[in-house]
Amino acid sequence: MRNWLVILFSSAALLFSSPSHAQQSVQAEQAAFIRQLFDSALVQGQSWSMLSHLCKQIGHRLSGSENAHKAVLYTRSQMLKLGFDSVWLQPVMVPVWVRGTKEKAYLVQSKRTPGGLIQQQEIQIEILALGGSVATPPGGLTAEVVEVANLEALRALPTAAASGKIVFINEAFDPRNIHTFEGYGHCVGNRYNGAREAAAKGAVGVIVRSLTYRVDAFPHTGVMSYGDAANRIPAAAISTLHAEQLSELLRKKQEVRLYMQMNCESRPDTLSYNVVGQIHGSELRDQIIAVGGHLDSWDVGEGAHDDGVGCVHSIEALRLLKVNGYQSRRSLRAIMFMNEENGLRGGDEYARLAKELKENHFAAIESDRGGFSPRQFNVEADSLVIADMQKWLPLFEPYGVHSIKAGGSGADVGRLRGNAEALLGFVPDSQRYFDFHHANSDVLEAVNRRELELGSAAIAALIYLLDQP
Amino acid sequence: MRNWLVILFSSAALLFSSPSHAQQSVQAEQAAFIRQLFDSALVQGQSWSMLSHLCKQIGHRLSGSENAHKAVLYTRSQMLKLGFDSVWLQPVMVPVWVRGTKEKAYLVQSKRTPGGLIQQQEIQIEILALGGSVATPPGGLTAEVVEVANLEALRALPTAAASGKIVFINEAFDPRNIHTFEGYGHCVGNRYNGAREAAAKGAVGVIVRSLTYRVDAFPHTGVMSYGDAANRIPAAAISTLHAEQLSELLRKKQEVRLYMQMNCESRPDTLSYNVVGQIHGSELRDQIIAVGGHLDSWDVGEGAHDDGVGCVHSIEALRLLKVNGYQSRRSLRAIMFMNEENGLRGGDEYARLAKELKENHFAAIESDRGGFSPRQFNVEADSLVIADMQKWLPLFEPYGVHSIKAGGSGADVGRLRGNAEALLGFVPDSQRYFDFHHANSDVLEAVNRRELELGSAAIAALIYLLDQP
Repeated sequence: MRNWLVILFSSAALLFSSPSHAQQSVQAEQAAFIRQLFDSALVQGQSWSMLSHLCKQIGHRLSGSENAHKAVLYTRSQMLKLGFDSVWLQPVMVPVWVRGTKEKAYLVQSKRTPGGLIQQQEIQIEILALGGSVATPPGGLTAEVVEVANLEALRALPTAAASGKIVFINEAFDPRNIHTFEGYGHCVGNRYNGAREAAAKGAVGVIVRSLTYRVDAFPHTGVMSYGDAANRIPAAAISTLHAEQLSELLRKKQEVRLYMQMNCESRPDTLSYNVVGQIHGSELRDQIIAVGGHLDSWDVGEGAHDDGVGCVHSIEALRLLKVNGYQSRRSLRAIMFMNEENGLRGGDEYARLAKELKENHFAAIESDRGGFSPRQFNVEADSLVIADMQKWLPLFEPYGVHSIKAGGSGADVGRLRGNAEALLGFVPDSQRYFDFHHANSDVLEAVNRRELELGSAAIAALIYLLDQP
Repeated sequence: MRNWLVILFSSAALLFSSPSHAQQSVQAEQAAFIRQLFDSALVQGQSWSMLSHLCKQIGHRLSGSENAHKAVLYTRSQMLKLGFDSVWLQPVMVPVWVRGTKEKAYLVQSKRTPGGLIQQQEIQIEILALGGSVATPPGGLTAEVVEVANLEALRALPTAAASGKIVFINEAFDPRNIHTFEGYGHCVGNRYNGAREAAAKGAVGVIVRSLTYRVDAFPHTGVMSYGDAANRIPAAAISTLHAEQLSELLRKKQEVRLYMQMNCESRPDTLSYNVVGQIHGSELRDQIIAVGGHLDSWDVGEGAHDDGVGCVHSIEALRLLKVNGYQSRRSLRAIMFMNEENGLRGGDEYARLAKELKENHFAAIESDRGGFSPRQFNVEADSLVIADMQKWLPLFEPYGVHSIKAGGSGADVGRLRGNAEALLGFVPDSQRYFDFHHANSDVLEAVNRRELELGSAAIAALIYLLDQP
């Protein structure tokens, strides 16, 4: 088995000599094939039509839903139609959470008139139940609101100040972040743990500022957890626009009560699937280069950027290699992971099976950062391996990929950690990702066709280079 | 006067020595100040509010229009309000072209029924008169359509094949272009010269496929010219969607006639203005670092990316330097050029005055490629000067600017060529630019606030570095 260390030894030997004619000709050949991959993606690519199908013919695809099952069948049939050598389903039990009818929420603001009367005004606000939340009582829930800046502030709150109230966690993303995922990493705990922490203070509900840089009326959902807590209170995301409005009222010491009604519920786990397609390798068939995205989405929008794009990138990358006549030395796999959003059961099951079957993952790539212009690949591997990959940069630079560096791959392929020689993450431009993430705005129209196609081609080029001798 | 050659000599002396402590501390200081510029743009930036004003309070701003004049007054008052040391108008006579009432166009398709009758069907299509075109006769114009692939094919057409017809130039952008402006450069002659060339063949009108990579129903206008030709025929852009539809009908040998009606007209030149704001330099007040965009736009959409963004980038870059306490050595200028779109009279006049007044432009930067994520700066200067600027790359990389290289600056600052030490162009990600360019879709909503702000900060950082000793 040829592996990274062998490659490194040979590279080290070459490091102090000028490239030979033979090496230059290999580089020219690689550059030409990569150009061909990009041309093919941009002229006759299928990224857009596949994403259109996922978004418009199917729609959002929460784990356990009928749509998620349609997406399983569609991507399976698509990979068969494209002539992949083998396409199979990996059964996996997934949680089922159902939103029910649309949430209702409004603020009740009490004002004393100059004449001493109390006037009440209702202000509609946009909320989305968080995935995994319990419902409110059927008629809804009304309580005073107490605002905290973050989980730390919530923990410091006297129980008396939260008891019987709805806790409002209003932590904005720091706009100074250049890479937008930094904001998400910093604030996602509010959404995941807010309900558990608020319940521990006697709160009756929690609303969390949506995890986005924009100020608009789209609430952004996402997974939450009660952990082992027995006291389960309803949890929702509030749009940033309404979070600012609510905070302003509270700052003015207005008496504000919040009414919220949610009908969501968790149901027993159900059977679903990862979908895996493989093109067999020639000389190194037992070595796998895998690329994947997740097929499930939240139950809003169309799961376009998150993560229909990643599924399409993966299938299209293999298709591009195939139709351009590339016979890979290693086996290539496109993986549609199920249930990344609220359980990671698909990623877990894929990694468990890989271990059980003693599969040899030479590299596994994840695309789960949206369908924007390609900028970078993150790598989880030994530093010398990463340095070796950085020699590919001149091949990527004509296409706007200027960086290959140490960094997180992704949640699903991350489950292979310790059992794959290199894990990689596709990193496109991040500025717009959280405009759409987990919101009703994550639709096909938010994706630019060329940016999507460039991503597919960049990933195909990466697989090609990983597979080179 | 300190100039680039002096800088080069001192740099060359340093090239073979390790950076001293003093140099390292200068670099750290520069990195810290650039970080401050970005923080300031993202947290308390005014890019978005200024662009909102231009787009929503004013709207599109064709040269000579009332809106263009409002934009002159707004940007002038804005720079005064921001405390720039001097703000002035440069009078410039501009062409006036008026679109008149909305264009009408449809295809008349004739079909013979099985019974031998001729049925006529009208198919509405979207066109936009090209800027500078004459009108059709008042009742419109109907003629057969002859399609050509490009200007070369038009030139090769026998006069008999074009005479009395409407010539349809249907050249699509090559999707293989990675930098989208390559397609524009290749096809823009169809729009600019199509009418003149078609008229020379006896055509009665010309329609040109819109200059965009997308296939959609938005026609994209832009400037055209009759040159010295006496025979002036109406010229319009047709949406790519309808171009494909029309081409399909012609390919099927269907008899297709096109009806078009346009009411546009050219009127006498009128007085308008460039708007210039300056922050005086301290030690090198006579040396100017200028940055500009064009204030005029086409008379569709809101002129957001083209080029409200460039105007806002320019004012905001100077504002960021000022509010962050930077006292520049050189004088800094923000220039709102008038009439870039259909005459370049503002650019010409600015350059003429600069020469007449013997102004010393150390550097001039243009932003006219949209408000997307910053990627690169183009430089027109001596190769050694460019190599020297490339040493700044480590300072830009944290913000996604990975490239400084030889390349075109822009149409307006390009008029200073030969009379400025370096001309530079801001180059953001180009994938989406032609989705909106010169079309009704070029509105504020097509701009991402963070991408806009990052551009302002990148330009401010560039000005800062240009001004450093």
